[in-house]
Amino acid sequence: MTMKKLMILAFIFLMGVAAQAQQNLSWGQGPQVASPDVHADNSVTFNLIAPEANHVQITGDFLPPKTVEFNGSTYDTPGVVDLVKDDKGVWSFTTEPLKPELYTYNLIVDGVKIIDPLNVYNIRDINNLFSVLLIGGDSRIDLYKVNKVPHGTVAKVWYESPTAGITRRLTVYTPAGYETSGKDYPVFYLLHGIGGDENAWSELGRAAQIMDNLIAQGKAEPMILVMTNGNISQEACPGETSEGYKVPTMMLPKTMEGTFETAFPDVVKFIEKTYRVKKDKAHRAIAGLSMGGFHSLFISINNPDMFGYVGLFSAAVDQQQADPNGFPNIYADRDAKIDVLFSKKPKLFWIGIGKTDFLINNNNALRAYLNAKKHKYTYLETDGGHIWRNWRIYLTEFTPLLFK
Amino acid sequence: MTMKKLMILAFIFLMGVAAQAQQNLSWGQGPQVASPDVHADNSVTFNLIAPEANHVQITGDFLPPKTVEFNGSTYDTPGVVDLVKDDKGVWSFTTEPLKPELYTYNLIVDGVKIIDPLNVYNIRDINNLFSVLLIGGDSRIDLYKVNKVPHGTVAKVWYESPTAGITRRLTVYTPAGYETSGKDYPVFYLLHGIGGDENAWSELGRAAQIMDNLIAQGKAEPMILVMTNGNISQEACPGETSEGYKVPTMMLPKTMEGTFETAFPDVVKFIEKTYRVKKDKAHRAIAGLSMGGFHSLFISINNPDMFGYVGLFSAAVDQQQADPNGFPNIYADRDAKIDVLFSKKPKLFWIGIGKTDFLINNNNALRAYLNAKKHKYTYLETDGGHIWRNWRIYLTEFTPLLFK
Repeated sequence: MTMKKLMILAFIFLMGVAAQAQQNLSWGQGPQVASPDVHADNSVTFNLIAPEANHVQITGDFLPPKTVEFNGSTYDTPGVVDLVKDDKGVWSFTTEPLKPELYTYNLIVDGVKIIDPLNVYNIRDINNLFSVLLIGGDSRIDLYKVNKVPHGTVAKVWYESPTAGITRRLTVYTPAGYETSGKDYPVFYLLHGIGGDENAWSELGRAAQIMDNLIAQGKAEPMILVMTNGNISQEACPGETSEGYKVPTMMLPKTMEGTFETAFPDVVKFIEKTYRVKKDKAHRAIAGLSMGGFHSLFISINNPDMFGYVGLFSAAVDQQQADPNGFPNIYADRDAKIDVLFSKKPKLFWIGIGKTDFLINNNNALRAYLNAKKHKYTYLETDGGHIWRNWRIYLTEFTPLLFK
Repeated sequence: MTMKKLMILAFIFLMGVAAQAQQNLSWGQGPQVASPDVHADNSVTFNLIAPEANHVQITGDFLPPKTVEFNGSTYDTPGVVDLVKDDKGVWSFTTEPLKPELYTYNLIVDGVKIIDPLNVYNIRDINNLFSVLLIGGDSRIDLYKVNKVPHGTVAKVWYESPTAGITRRLTVYTPAGYETSGKDYPVFYLLHGIGGDENAWSELGRAAQIMDNLIAQGKAEPMILVMTNGNISQEACPGETSEGYKVPTMMLPKTMEGTFETAFPDVVKFIEKTYRVKKDKAHRAIAGLSMGGFHSLFISINNPDMFGYVGLFSAAVDQQQADPNGFPNIYADRDAKIDVLFSKKPKLFWIGIGKTDFLINNNNALRAYLNAKKHKYTYLETDGGHIWRNWRIYLTEFTPLLFK
């Protein structure tokens, strides 16, 4: 009896989200639908129970992209299509058969974008909460899944940054067995893009799953992965800071003005004091996506003895104007600093970018410089633009090259 | 230029959730509203930009509860009120001044329950995703906040359960300084209710914040907190398992049939092998809410030398029928096993329950038994029912009594 009452109570909560709030509470009544409903041919039906809605749409990166124009430039955004309502008030849309990939999507109910209430699997990126759809069956995409392999630990850890004068949070992945092996491990510092935070790589980036699977397959060395928060004015991601409800904006102070890069050695010191790690250049890697690639470039060239491996994923690579109130020297003399970095023979300098990425011209210019100077680097060009699909690919390509 | 383009790209994502998807993308145009907007008197305005919606409501635990009847019993659920639309398509509702508390709420757009798109702070419980509103200014409620105090580490850790034959995830809080102190710590095992998982206590329960703050105030001993997943058929919470998209239900197999309790010593062994901990009864505590209180009771009375401290938070305490295919002895002879537990003089046996909890009669019957046998226990009765508000209170009351 007790168990039944507990289940009823839980069910009342469930019904609240699975169907409309006003519905009579009764087991098994009303439409019984799943969403997403993945069929044998990998076509997918999305369902929403919404008898009172006028108009329901879906937007997701499995749909043909929609091009939007802004300030004279064009940007691809996920396409939008209508769902169709049946006589029970269930709105549906079925895709073409989809290729294996981790897709994200939202439903739009009378103009309000929501996550799929029948899909418990959702991920935040910037302010946006997406529903997630993972279609497996491909050797790369299966790396993004939780598989039956030994799992590392993912920890939210706070560190002091004396340089920046702030206590901050980061995400640390330690490989399976770390706690009891007694061994020292190499460290890979992995940085997010603008608007992201210390959760970005472990959520949309699937970094822990990728590491677990690559290590289990013998393709990557067991290593510690450190995922920082590149917004140096933030203690941590929204909801996890002493700042309470402040909504994050793109206009965060001190982003790409030098403080994060200048304070980065505080992170390395903290990790090397706190974890069992190998403390030399041959056992430190750094990489980042977009703004994080920019950070990785300027951190590595300003500390040319720190990292043996550098990865630029769809990176902003142009020299920026330093904030006159910030740390003025960090962006100065980019090319001369690159020359110094290469004079010290990094084990790997890796560049990956999408063919339609709006940063490809900047990356081509950087590559032209590296070519002219005969600096050796590895280059991967993929389809598509400035998107997580590419950043997950780059992580799966870059990581197996580390610490060998 | 690069930075500006990155910001535009991020802004396009932002706009997608902050306003309706079809809106022209243009900085600073359209209604500029915040939600929740907390005023000086702690009244709160909720705003939703939804010009196309017919009907917008809010449901939350700061509203007078709505009583629903099901199967002859009545249950309190959060109240529902209408929002009012202005001429710009912004729907609003303002509460009375609210007492300090952590509240949860959802908006309902044309019958579809959603989280507040302008509030980045949301928490999952069972299948339901809630928006969160924390009104501080009270010494207890301020324990739920991230304050500027030393922060412990929260880790998602996988362990093997040979007894249950499954690899499973749990959440481990280690106190600030654990990594480098070299000290051994006591361990508090904290269990969730039906429908929850290994994330429940660290999300809605605010367990890490409560521990950080109680330890910083000198009110609790530094300790390790281990938050298990009580659904023994699950590897981990939804989205974090090799089972992929299976939607969790209340009908999970092997819940409250003895396997979790029988396999629990595997957790203790794993923790004591993996962390620097004190390995005796005087330095082990166990507590849980609802089903987790039920688990805590039967784990502790079946292992009377394991835990010096036992906490039952709104616990299901009745003897259950064991699954004939499960572990038949775990629920047998409850009262005799309680007598054995008390004969070994636990340091603390703690019961907390709400005055209107549907489990209060069962708890009263248990207390009558303890009284009749002169078994010493501590009892706290609070207002309200079977809700997280009470479980957070019980955690703040129970924890300071441990390991002193």
